[in-house]
Amino acid sequence: MKALRYENGELKIADMAKPIGDGETVVRVTLSGICNTDLEIARGYAGFQGTIGHEFVGVIVSASAARPSASTPNANKPSLTVGLVPGQRVVGEINAGCGICDLCSRGDPRHCPQRTVLGIVGRDGAHAEFLKLPTVNLLPVPDEIPDERAVFTEPLAAACGILERAEVSEDTGVGVIGDGKLGLLCAQVLATTGAGVTLIGAKSRTLKFDLVVEASGSPSGFQLALDLLRPRGVLVLKSTFHGAAEMNAARIVVDEISVVGSRCGRFAPALELLRSNAIDVESLISEEFALANGVRAMERAATPGVVKVLLRP
Amino acid sequence: MKALRYENGELKIADMAKPIGDGETVVRVTLSGICNTDLEIARGYAGFQGTIGHEFVGVIVSASAARPSASTPNANKPSLTVGLVPGQRVVGEINAGCGICDLCSRGDPRHCPQRTVLGIVGRDGAHAEFLKLPTVNLLPVPDEIPDERAVFTEPLAAACGILERAEVSEDTGVGVIGDGKLGLLCAQVLATTGAGVTLIGAKSRTLKFDLVVEASGSPSGFQLALDLLRPRGVLVLKSTFHGAAEMNAARIVVDEISVVGSRCGRFAPALELLRSNAIDVESLISEEFALANGVRAMERAATPGVVKVLLRP
Repeated sequence: MKALRYENGELKIADMAKPIGDGETVVRVTLSGICNTDLEIARGYAGFQGTIGHEFVGVIVSASAARPSASTPNANKPSLTVGLVPGQRVVGEINAGCGICDLCSRGDPRHCPQRTVLGIVGRDGAHAEFLKLPTVNLLPVPDEIPDERAVFTEPLAAACGILERAEVSEDTGVGVIGDGKLGLLCAQVLATTGAGVTLIGAKSRTLKFDLVVEASGSPSGFQLALDLLRPRGVLVLKSTFHGAAEMNAARIVVDEISVVGSRCGRFAPALELLRSNAIDVESLISEEFALANGVRAMERAATPGVVKVLLRP
Repeated sequence: MKALRYENGELKIADMAKPIGDGETVVRVTLSGICNTDLEIARGYAGFQGTIGHEFVGVIVSASAARPSASTPNANKPSLTVGLVPGQRVVGEINAGCGICDLCSRGDPRHCPQRTVLGIVGRDGAHAEFLKLPTVNLLPVPDEIPDERAVFTEPLAAACGILERAEVSEDTGVGVIGDGKLGLLCAQVLATTGAGVTLIGAKSRTLKFDLVVEASGSPSGFQLALDLLRPRGVLVLKSTFHGAAEMNAARIVVDEISVVGSRCGRFAPALELLRSNAIDVESLISEEFALANGVRAMERAATPGVVKVLLRP
């Protein structure tokens, strides 16, 4: 099978053996999305070698019985693992935990110290014709959600994750820095709470917000976020960026700012937002490439102004 | 009167006119404490010019009627402003708000954008024979608390402020970085919650904590705090430090760390801790100087290993 891989400093389409389930479930990928994390990996910043990609929708090829474990990332929705039979269209949570540590036992492998992460840490990813994941990671996709929307489940879940980390109500004045794919999804998710949400451009420096999401992926975005917060405001740090940001400790202490990191979110609420058409994702799609042209697709994805680039195996 | 002042790049004892109340209350200072913020000001880092010092205990000389305003910093304890008559021994909250903005109206001038701060922002401070403050800022000192303990009310309140900013229970594993006066007070306050508290030395790097307080005042302390936190842990940033810290954004996002700034706290709970002897402060006192030797006292306070230095007018 074809796979888009980063190895020994080189990004390339390689011919790989189709994965064998071996206790996990094999999925034929029908569509995958290029994320900024993929671009960071391809720049050598993340230390990952192998098949990249973690945003996907696909169809089950060979299902393994779900482990009868409490470690499902969807412990609150156990019924979702019902129906994971060959032919079922699925999306998949990207963190695969050990299944036995405290965190996994509480149903949340996202911080399991032994975890692998699809296409990011120790596990081949989704820019390929096939992938495998633990069965507990997979969620059926409702029929109403076409592939072109379902492929946004993972980044949308990440945006939803903000609501796990910070309280947002309709009284919260929210700013979002970054008008790329992550920022646009964050802004839409935050707007579902009824909060007033402002996408921050370069001219917004006089506003003061209760909560600002840094989704621009640049250190200067972090400083801008600090500048825009009221005292005791909350800065949600959503994008990692290569290198270190300069942090003005005095500002954080004197104005009692909270800086809250947010990474992955739950898939179930993201799927519900897609099913109910509460979120527009189609307009974020800039281009689609065949997987065979994956290297060129990555170049396009790194081009300023290009939002989401999809790969079709 | 004598006053320890920082002006035009120079720290000196100057002869100043005794303050006139003019709607505020004049206090004769009986003892003041040198804080690291004083040292930062004397290095020119804080942009303040005037009489430094904000930790004090004193006696009311001439009282002004308390403003019948909701802006008292002790709105939850309005009875505390009763009895503020000449001769009353007092401590004083250091933030003086405008009294009319939203924050002041809610009884908390600590983030009033128009505030002055005793010996720090736009208001002469406590290393002097006399000072003045709004009457609403003053709290009577219970007889059981001698001056040498009462002078710790402000830094102890700042340590108590952590509990306003982060949830700590007896199940919380707490680390405190910095074994100076601030760190030692923070550790004691946190221990009153029943939490296990570890003062962090250089050899503690293998531990993982739920909450770490950065009270060392150095950028390297910030990085150490990050290293010591479990995923979704809370870093309370308690000390400002000159210059910027390098912040590893990826670590904060991937491990979903919260960085919570904490500055001033309420005086009433700090006084109660002192009254009930729940906190040891006497052993933090390294040396006492006469105010006339204030410049030498500041040099001593900046010496490694010296904890709290007091000034007696």
